[in-house]
Formats: sequence, C-alpha cells, structure tokens
Amino acid sequence: MAGKPVILLTNDDSIRAPGLRFLIECARPFGKVVVVAPDRPQSGTAHAVTVNHPLRLELINRDKDYEEYSCNGTPADCVKLAFKVVLKKRADFLFSGINHGTNSSINIIYSGTMAAVFEGALAGVSSAGFSLADYSMNADFRASSAYIKKIISGVIRNKLPEGVCLNVNIPAVPENRIKGIKVCRQAEGTWQEDFDERKDPHGRTYYWMTGVFVKTGHGKDTDEWALDHNYIAVVPVQFDFTAITALKPISNWFS
Amino acid sequence: MAGKPVILLTNDDSIRAPGLRFLIECARPFGKVVVVAPDRPQSGTAHAVTVNHPLRLELINRDKDYEEYSCNGTPADCVKLAFKVVLKKRADFLFSGINHGTNSSINIIYSGTMAAVFEGALAGVSSAGFSLADYSMNADFRASSAYIKKIISGVIRNKLPEGVCLNVNIPAVPENRIKGIKVCRQAEGTWQEDFDERKDPHGRTYYWMTGVFVKTGHGKDTDEWALDHNYIAVVPVQFDFTAITALKPISNWFS
Repeated sequence: MAGKPVILLTNDDSIRAPGLRFLIECARPFGKVVVVAPDRPQSGTAHAVTVNHPLRLELINRDKDYEEYSCNGTPADCVKLAFKVVLKKRADFLFSGINHGTNSSINIIYSGTMAAVFEGALAGVSSAGFSLADYSMNADFRASSAYIKKIISGVIRNKLPEGVCLNVNIPAVPENRIKGIKVCRQAEGTWQEDFDERKDPHGRTYYWMTGVFVKTGHGKDTDEWALDHNYIAVVPVQFDFTAITALKPISNWFS
Repeated sequence: MAGKPVILLTNDDSIRAPGLRFLIECARPFGKVVVVAPDRPQSGTAHAVTVNHPLRLELINRDKDYEEYSCNGTPADCVKLAFKVVLKKRADFLFSGINHGTNSSINIIYSGTMAAVFEGALAGVSSAGFSLADYSMNADFRASSAYIKKIISGVIRNKLPEGVCLNVNIPAVPENRIKGIKVCRQAEGTWQEDFDERKDPHGRTYYWMTGVFVKTGHGKDTDEWALDHNYIAVVPVQFDFTAITALKPISNWFS
C-alpha cells in the first residue's frame, strides 16, 4: 500500500456508541480512518444483510485522514457499502467494536460486531473485532487502550493469514489488573433461554426472550478462562466451518 | 427416547413456503412432527435473535402426531421458543428447510435456515438443514425426495457427533440425473457485491444491494463441486470457529 493504510471501522452498537468512539481514538494514529457504522443499535443481528429494502449512507463528519458515515443497514451491510460505495476499493484493515458486552465463546455466532469482521476477512482484508465484558453504555474502555493499540499494531505489521480474523475480548477490570494478551481457542458454551410469558391488553400471549450464558468448557486454553483470569482473549477465527473429523464417519452412513 | 422421536421442523422462507411443506411430508413417517416457523420470509437474517420486541406464537394446525405454529421471530427464535415454550423440552431431532436457494460454501454464514440448525446443535440436538439450488417459490422439490428421506433416516439412526450438524445442498435437476450423496467440505467462495444507486422522489440517494457469488475453491472434495456434478452435497459443520493452525503464529506476535 502506498502512503498511510486505509482503516475501516464499524460496530453493531451504532455510530453513537462510546465503544466505537474509543476505537476511533485508538486507530487514528495508524492510518486514514473511515467509519461506516449503523445509525441505530444492531446487537444480535448476526450476519444479517439487507436485500429487501434500500440502504442509505449519510456523511457525518470529514477531517484530515478521517471520514465518518452512518448507514441504515446492518454491520455486514456497512462493510459491503464501505468497500463498494465509500472507498470504491477494499480497506487495508478493518476493526470492529468496541462492543459493549463480550463476544467470547459461542456468542460470536449472534454477533453483529464479528459479522462485520467476517465480512472484511471474506473480502481478503485483515480484520479484528473488539468487545469489552461490560454491557453498560457507560463502560470504561480506557483501561485496555495500550493493549488495543498493541493488537491493532500487530495486525497492521503482520497481516493475518488468509481466511483468518481475530475475535478480541477484553475483561472489564482496571488497567493494573489486566495481566496481558492470551491467544486462545473458543470455549464451549451455550445459552439457556427462558421466555417471560405475558398477556397484552387484548388478552393475547406474548413472550420476552431472556437467558443466561452457560460455559461448558473451562480449559486454560480457552477465551472464557482468559477473561475469567483478567487476560485479553484473542481467538483466531476461520469461516471454513467444515467439521473435518466428521467427514469420514458420516460418509460411512451412505456407503 | 420412549416411543416416536419428536422432530422439530423450521425454515427461513416462512411457514407458507413450499420447501417447508415438502420437508413436512418427508419427515412425518419418522416420528411426531412439530413445526415452528417464521410467519414471514426471513432469508438473510442469519443468526439474528429477537430480544428488543415481544415474540408471539400462533397454533396453525394440530393433527395426530403433528403440530404447527407460526412465530413472528427469526429462525433462531423459532428454535428457542419451540424447545422452551412449545415442547417444554428439546426435540430429539431438528430439520430446517427446504430452503429455496443454496446455502453451500460461504452462504452458510448468511443463512437463517442454517442458523436454526446451529441453534439445534448448540442445544445438543442432532440437526440438519436442507437447501435446493433453485430460488423460485415454484421450485420442484420432489426429485430429491428419496435422498432427503435417506439423510433424515441416517441422522435418526446414527445421531450426529456432538458439536456437529449437517448442511445439505441439493442440485436442481430431475431425479434421474441426481448421482447420489457426497459428504464433502465447504468450498471457498465469496460474494462480489454491487450497489444499484438511485435517487428517491426527494432527490436523496439510496442503494439496492445486488451481487454475484464467486467460487474461489473448486476441489473435488467441496460442496460446490458436488452440486456442479449433480450430487447432493452433505457438509458436516461445526461451531467451534477457532483457526487452530493460526494459534501459534499469532501468539508469536505478542511474545
């Protein structure tokens, strides 16, 4: 790349979320930053894409080596529009977040933050998503500032292997309690949902989804262990979902 | 399990889609069938879940060993509601589809059909998704009937390994041209999006997303190869997304 690298930033908590504002601060020293982010919260949208209604982009702010757009689509839409319409080329790097709440373990599958990262990686762009283990909109992101810059710098310096992106989760503890960065695997876990059953004013039943996340894997090599022990968890993630070890046994069913 | 197995069916094309009606026919000989499916098309919703508005269920039909509900949520919502509210336990098996259009290669990541399958597998239920390589609502599903029943029977007889589900894609050709079932891996591929730029009556710009899918992997061991050669492609899929081979090189960045 000639000159400063072009860095695309996005998230799923909306363009106004403090986590994104903080990520912008962290990323600006590394290159030309272009932000394309949803105009309203999109948590839990996963990898949804918008094909049945029109998408809009609004220029919010432009400055030296900086542009910011809001979009009425999902995080995946934002990335596609950024490459094709805003930049008219792929970015050199993509960072998503910082999400208000973790995307560790199986939570990656519901995550708009990480869908944007997959979208970047699918286009061949070195991409990483950041999430803080604090769901509050007033979460304090500063504690991890030095580590986030270290990871951004690592991605820019080394590039990621093809087909691999990073899922970075940050414990919600003060700076002096963060023990460092741990590269680890996705822990086993699942959500145990519950549904709060209510009656509307017309007597019809409706349900609110609630649930608790249950870790079922606790190995020292997992992201959940790392977070529990105040490490920043970095999971290299791939989008070839083939269960290689199951190929042969399942072939035998049909032979 | 005592007595007939309980089989949950769902999809992302809505409860009225011919693909689901056909899957119901295929599955009924194998046990007690419970259908919980979205009340409107949800293609491209991926693994979205609904936490910010209330969910509703409507009993549509009840018969011997058969129940059918529509739900205003996503495919993942349908599965969660089915287990927790409708069945009040997990189903023994889950089948999703038959989707109008393929979910081969990287399309799995955008797929509501396969999100429902992941949701089943995460709950420990042997789960498979079916998709036909024909996007038309008038697609002819009958050609693959015998193969679909063979795969359903295979899942029920053998159960799937923990953490593994099946992504089944069916070529859109007449029965006598289907060559058989091929267990294979997910092909490399990506979408090359384009955006059709237009002006609304108020002079504001908006965009329609369009795109073409581009196969970048063509190996004989891939689902794309299988479909191209008139095989039914069965990919065993896992939801541990860790890129194991990248763990060590990325650890070295931070050591």
